[in-house]
Amino acid sequence: MCAVVGIFGNTDAAKLAVAALFQMQHRGHESSGITSSGEGSDGKMVTVKDGGFVRDIFDKERMLLLKGDMAIGHNRYSTAGSESLFDAQPIQARCNFGDISIVHNGNLINKDEVRNQLIEDGSIFQTNMDTENVIHLIAKSKQVRLRDKIKDALDVIKGAYSFIIQSNDKQYVIRDKHGIRPLSIGKIKSGGWVIASETCCFDLLDAEFVRDVRPGEMLVFTKDVIEPESIQLYEPDFHPCAFEFVYLARPDSDIAGVNVYQCRETMGRKLALANPVDADMVVPVPDSGVAAALGYARESGVPFELGIIRNHYVGRTFIEPSQAIRDMKVKMKLSPQRSLIKGKKLVVIDDSLVRGTTSKRIVKMLKDAGAAEVHFRVAAPEIKFPDVYGIDTPTKEELISANMTKDEVCAFLEADSLEYLSIEDLVDSIGCSENYSLVSFDGNYFVK
Amino acid sequence: MCAVVGIFGNTDAAKLAVAALFQMQHRGHESSGITSSGEGSDGKMVTVKDGGFVRDIFDKERMLLLKGDMAIGHNRYSTAGSESLFDAQPIQARCNFGDISIVHNGNLINKDEVRNQLIEDGSIFQTNMDTENVIHLIAKSKQVRLRDKIKDALDVIKGAYSFIIQSNDKQYVIRDKHGIRPLSIGKIKSGGWVIASETCCFDLLDAEFVRDVRPGEMLVFTKDVIEPESIQLYEPDFHPCAFEFVYLARPDSDIAGVNVYQCRETMGRKLALANPVDADMVVPVPDSGVAAALGYARESGVPFELGIIRNHYVGRTFIEPSQAIRDMKVKMKLSPQRSLIKGKKLVVIDDSLVRGTTSKRIVKMLKDAGAAEVHFRVAAPEIKFPDVYGIDTPTKEELISANMTKDEVCAFLEADSLEYLSIEDLVDSIGCSENYSLVSFDGNYFVK
Amino acid sequence: MCAVVGIFGNTDAAKLAVAALFQMQHRGHESSGITSSGEGSDGKMVTVKDGGFVRDIFDKERMLLLKGDMAIGHNRYSTAGSESLFDAQPIQARCNFGDISIVHNGNLINKDEVRNQLIEDGSIFQTNMDTENVIHLIAKSKQVRLRDKIKDALDVIKGAYSFIIQSNDKQYVIRDKHGIRPLSIGKIKSGGWVIASETCCFDLLDAEFVRDVRPGEMLVFTKDVIEPESIQLYEPDFHPCAFEFVYLARPDSDIAGVNVYQCRETMGRKLALANPVDADMVVPVPDSGVAAALGYARESGVPFELGIIRNHYVGRTFIEPSQAIRDMKVKMKLSPQRSLIKGKKLVVIDDSLVRGTTSKRIVKMLKDAGAAEVHFRVAAPEIKFPDVYGIDTPTKEELISANMTKDEVCAFLEADSLEYLSIEDLVDSIGCSENYSLVSFDGNYFVK
Amino acid sequence: MCAVVGIFGNTDAAKLAVAALFQMQHRGHESSGITSSGEGSDGKMVTVKDGGFVRDIFDKERMLLLKGDMAIGHNRYSTAGSESLFDAQPIQARCNFGDISIVHNGNLINKDEVRNQLIEDGSIFQTNMDTENVIHLIAKSKQVRLRDKIKDALDVIKGAYSFIIQSNDKQYVIRDKHGIRPLSIGKIKSGGWVIASETCCFDLLDAEFVRDVRPGEMLVFTKDVIEPESIQLYEPDFHPCAFEFVYLARPDSDIAGVNVYQCRETMGRKLALANPVDADMVVPVPDSGVAAALGYARESGVPFELGIIRNHYVGRTFIEPSQAIRDMKVKMKLSPQRSLIKGKKLVVIDDSLVRGTTSKRIVKMLKDAGAAEVHFRVAAPEIKFPDVYGIDTPTKEELISANMTKDEVCAFLEADSLEYLSIEDLVDSIGCSENYSLVSFDGNYFVK
Repeated sequence: MCAVVGIFGNTDAAKLAVAALFQMQHRGHESSGITSSGEGSDGKMVTVKDGGFVRDIFDKERMLLLKGDMAIGHNRYSTAGSESLFDAQPIQARCNFGDISIVHNGNLINKDEVRNQLIEDGSIFQTNMDTENVIHLIAKSKQVRLRDKIKDALDVIKGAYSFIIQSNDKQYVIRDKHGIRPLSIGKIKSGGWVIASETCCFDLLDAEFVRDVRPGEMLVFTKDVIEPESIQLYEPDFHPCAFEFVYLARPDSDIAGVNVYQCRETMGRKLALANPVDADMVVPVPDSGVAAALGYARESGVPFELGIIRNHYVGRTFIEPSQAIRDMKVKMKLSPQRSLIKGKKLVVIDDSLVRGTTSKRIVKMLKDAGAAEVHFRVAAPEIKFPDVYGIDTPTKEELISANMTKDEVCAFLEADSLEYLSIEDLVDSIGCSENYSLVSFDGNYFVK
Repeated sequence: MCAVVGIFGNTDAAKLAVAALFQMQHRGHESSGITSSGEGSDGKMVTVKDGGFVRDIFDKERMLLLKGDMAIGHNRYSTAGSESLFDAQPIQARCNFGDISIVHNGNLINKDEVRNQLIEDGSIFQTNMDTENVIHLIAKSKQVRLRDKIKDALDVIKGAYSFIIQSNDKQYVIRDKHGIRPLSIGKIKSGGWVIASETCCFDLLDAEFVRDVRPGEMLVFTKDVIEPESIQLYEPDFHPCAFEFVYLARPDSDIAGVNVYQCRETMGRKLALANPVDADMVVPVPDSGVAAALGYARESGVPFELGIIRNHYVGRTFIEPSQAIRDMKVKMKLSPQRSLIKGKKLVVIDDSLVRGTTSKRIVKMLKDAGAAEVHFRVAAPEIKFPDVYGIDTPTKEELISANMTKDEVCAFLEADSLEYLSIEDLVDSIGCSENYSLVSFDGNYFVK
Repeated sequence: MCAVVGIFGNTDAAKLAVAALFQMQHRGHESSGITSSGEGSDGKMVTVKDGGFVRDIFDKERMLLLKGDMAIGHNRYSTAGSESLFDAQPIQARCNFGDISIVHNGNLINKDEVRNQLIEDGSIFQTNMDTENVIHLIAKSKQVRLRDKIKDALDVIKGAYSFIIQSNDKQYVIRDKHGIRPLSIGKIKSGGWVIASETCCFDLLDAEFVRDVRPGEMLVFTKDVIEPESIQLYEPDFHPCAFEFVYLARPDSDIAGVNVYQCRETMGRKLALANPVDADMVVPVPDSGVAAALGYARESGVPFELGIIRNHYVGRTFIEPSQAIRDMKVKMKLSPQRSLIKGKKLVVIDDSLVRGTTSKRIVKMLKDAGAAEVHFRVAAPEIKFPDVYGIDTPTKEELISANMTKDEVCAFLEADSLEYLSIEDLVDSIGCSENYSLVSFDGNYFVK
Repeated sequence: MCAVVGIFGNTDAAKLAVAALFQMQHRGHESSGITSSGEGSDGKMVTVKDGGFVRDIFDKERMLLLKGDMAIGHNRYSTAGSESLFDAQPIQARCNFGDISIVHNGNLINKDEVRNQLIEDGSIFQTNMDTENVIHLIAKSKQVRLRDKIKDALDVIKGAYSFIIQSNDKQYVIRDKHGIRPLSIGKIKSGGWVIASETCCFDLLDAEFVRDVRPGEMLVFTKDVIEPESIQLYEPDFHPCAFEFVYLARPDSDIAGVNVYQCRETMGRKLALANPVDADMVVPVPDSGVAAALGYARESGVPFELGIIRNHYVGRTFIEPSQAIRDMKVKMKLSPQRSLIKGKKLVVIDDSLVRGTTSKRIVKMLKDAGAAEVHFRVAAPEIKFPDVYGIDTPTKEELISANMTKDEVCAFLEADSLEYLSIEDLVDSIGCSENYSLVSFDGNYFVK
């Protein structure tokens, strides 16, 4: 899923980039990286990247390397892939016009064709990332100005992308014409600009939200120019990803002018209206289901209760499987509120239902703890299609709703009932007039 | 504050102890340790202890050392103290009757007198922990049976204590006559017993709650004896610590038959009844204020909203202070829900107010984010006295309510109003007839 | 300086490669890496590389990733350079003909021209290593067979190189026509072949020396073909590097049929013959000067004594500079044999004299310990020119003999006398009829 | 075997202690520790100790804790024992007269009796180290002055000991009346004193050797008193350990006025005189056999050659056993000089022969590499008895010479001949008139 950030025109650029990546850690914690350059860097572009959490990667020693008043950063979501190559971002490269570095949130659907053509023409690839395609395309462009080279590259690729590209003195920000992945601009009070996947990082940076990057827009940040230059590269055809609202974004982010928390609360309300149930309490799966559960409780009048407690100390599973401890992975993270739920009829709210295995364990855990009934309500429509625009959904074979009817899923979960948010209610909840990308729900792969 | 656990009669004893310590990590993460012995240990008592989180300390290699069907474990709360001695528990020692190991939750108020007398008599101390006193006293007893030696030692010490003491074939569990710190017994489905500071760990161990250890009771677990032997060492004079309900325990624990989550919800309700305010929303300080905020919202009819979002990836602060990022420590952990709270009147609920510095930063953060009014409500009475029975409250100089009136504190916080739960409402909320230890609130140091 | 190894046709390929890199650690310990592929790898080429020592990099978990019956490996010598890019080898890349990986020992003198031309043509570079040029050149070749593509690439580059290139089913080994850097072939008793920079690793692998790779030769190892195919790509013009004998190679290696240890012993003898001195003992700088000191002692009749003891536990310097400990860096590594040398006239033998700073500290240390006289003898000629063929000598400014006469250097060292091996004696010591590369001594940069 | 160091009266006390421990790393690298106190420590005695190498334990952060102008330190030799208790030194304890800390090199032969008596009397033990006995005895003494308390404790214990004991303002140094383990005094040029197990650390500290601590002597270092006070506690009965000369000490140390390196050289000469052999070269097992081999070569006229090369990068064995690599553990450390020894008759010299397994592998390695004959010569007598005075020799069952005749051992090694140094020649080599402790050779356990 990934997060990108760019800081321009602040002497603490790398530090601010780390803070922003830290706030966007929920979008990926396989690896993180930062490239710095600009004034104060002695003309030297430097990239630090490694596997793990932001808080562990950027220690004092490494921060000393990241000089300059410009920085771009990236969090990478864990995906199954080759461990042999260094698939972390940014990708920094020396090209015919100098050093550049690039970060990318999204997914290029024609990556294999482009890569194969580039390889055919003699390019070599040192990573498995589609982002490497873009650098090759930029380097091969015959244009003179970097902005035009980038435009040449963008003309070749298809898919979802939010790019930030950094040279030794400029930053280029580009969002695809559908605006599938979010990308927002903030003004930092201590100086300069921040561009980030989510607005939730602005508060920590003491930055003020300015606006979203427009679909199809390129922004060029140049030293000594107060406002970034805006170039509308492509006619906008806005299809922001509905999944950001459902699951991916942090509740304190605003996307396309809509607050994610409030949007989820509305989803919960609509879920209650369409799928009422006679119950004693509404229980969220923490933390993902909390906002929708609040809405469900309000609309239905059934009390909201923290019937499941989340343990925040979970790291890697450290104890070897033992016969004495079953379902340990889920139970180490979630604990039932036994005294509260015993003999009670529960409406359990989660934000989505993908494979169904964790949900099944939650139902069992609650019933083992004495719940009389467990009614599962999902604050999203059935996920029947894999996403290809930058969200890591599993293959169709693993998507439970692609392979079972609602009733079959309910039986699999051993829940007393199961209902989903309708696609209409999802769209209404987001509530602005755009043609949302609903690809996981309706299979309409509109970027071709 | 610390947590203790004992596992008796399960071949996975050490693994289960780790799981229990993991669930009780909120009671302390300065250091953790486990001692194992019993059948399967080749007669060898082994202790592993180290600084840090449970998940990091007990790796595969170390778990291999912890053999046997008995184990005791301890989480230690971070306290200011000498770094030169190894102040982690369990303390294992070779005595005249063999090896023992001990874990302790509580605080001995006559520790200095006892230690000085022991030192006077020629004992040496290798740690700064009052627990070391107890081993010396046991070793010096002229009694024959270990249980009688332990009784001799207990007759000397005063204060709050939940001890678990392990020999090569028995486990002794003792709770002081006031039952100040909690201690509960569970039966593990895969075999044997668990004794733990909090019942919240029972679910992960697949253990069933049996009962609390009684004030003044000693339990002796012996191999091949089905039920532990119970010895009432002292006349009970039950004064469980009210602070466990207010702050310390996990919401999914039951203490003295009372569910902590529900107790906190009631505190919130009583706080609302006594201190109503005209507001747009009730906002908990996450996660500590959530249960009380739910109660407050229900009683007052003011909507409950997650107006502050908590970042769960916080580790050590990794970036050096930078002019560009003020109040970073709080802001990295808590973010305001800007869109939600802008122009709104908020009732902010927290579980307690100790030094006041973090609360002040929260008020400022919410006002900076546009809140029209911030009314602070504390789901506990004013903390005017240091605790001496095992809770790490700061000195009187640092307790804001020991040095300022309510109005002065309100001005310090720059809040629009400030109210606390009354002592009566606190006692009513817990709702059972015991004489609670309210020492932090009323200064009644009843153990002398 | 670097070391390369290739293992072909052994199911333990990666393990054997680690063992060989371990034996060649003296050629570089900035970083190490291994690429594995071939039968047993599920068609997946995997590279593991990291900074540090071989013993630390290749842990159990990483070894599990390195499957297959072919492996190439590399040790990198520490050089000043950008820390921002991942300058470790092997470099693995996806090309138009599939995956390849490459390791390189040597230095390409036209690397900048080649790189600039490639960049001009739109190639991008993700490392600072000249080796990356070669992959680009191979990928751009219009030839059909990989061996021909490699030949195309070799036709462009100039300099010193020992390459091992691995595809998914073949290994290509190439040594430049001058055979500047050593490269030898061994037959592994448990199966398959080893190619390595130095023969000193053969014993650990239970491999038998077969022969050196010939200057200008390419070897192609193919599955199911018993002997590698040999292709003489270029007319040999053998100029092996004399510096390997002087300093670089391990004493138990044979290069061009000459044993390094015996060669150094001869250098010491010739040094004694040409530069006798009236002394009480011959003292080697350990371990580099030991073999030459043995020869000097034998020829001169002056007794050989370990007058300087080396501490083998040295790691990174761990204590901050303190006024109390001067010259700590040298003194932690080397200690004078005070009782032995007190009042004695010493001939101190080292293998070479580059900057002179360490030698100066050694002379001081010996005099402080009571030596009556210190006569410095260097078992190599004066180093007046930077090497450009793969040995990391400093710039001309830092080479003491490029800037001072012998007498001036002697005064700088505060030695009682100073003598070097003559170039003629060096050549005679190596003793075979080749035109040695003496570039550091005579400045004859024969590869142009 | 262990090493101790004390620094008194230098503001860099802890740093100097680290440097000294580093120089004495050969005496033990299981764990190391330092206690600091004195002026500049704010009256706070602090101990840092951990497992591993000196260079890794004492990082910057830990050094900051070690304040004050007095420090004692300890390196612990790896011994088989319980991993459950923290068996590292110094042992710091709070006693009735204040804090003390103690380090110990040696072994107390009546430790079990003393410990059992102490335990009987109610003392508890938190380690497995005999050193803990001493603190208990000191603490129990009824004397007033610490020096008298220490004397009381010494009157109880028997065995070999070099102690350094530190209070908050004094350092007490004691060597047993037999002076079994070495202990020397140096004057630090930058101020204050160093006491250390071996003089080899003095050079790095810029300290001048003053004299050895006398057998039965106590030295008391007191602030503002220029020279330490010397108290002869016991009548000297000097039996220094011959094994220090044979194996344990670093060659650049002087013990009892004898230089270890020169002593070993003499042993080699005497070995040659008594056991000549017709051979082509004398080959030391590096590094332990080098000095004796030099002597053997000189006396015999057979040339000294480095026929075995040692790899200094060995750490933990990192690769799992593989069929392809036999005897890897020895072969990773030692490599044969194949070209040099092929077809040659070798005299191989090692410093001692304990279990015989490594020697057997060395003989095999040399024969595999083509040696025509391997004559093994040991520069020590046959080790037939376990040491009990502080050297970690294996049990009698494992000592090959306790269980086999010389001829049987020779057959086991598959050597062509085997000879040892005689006890008489050993004593003559050391060459001073003391009654050396020869316990491993003659079984004369003189301390009873």
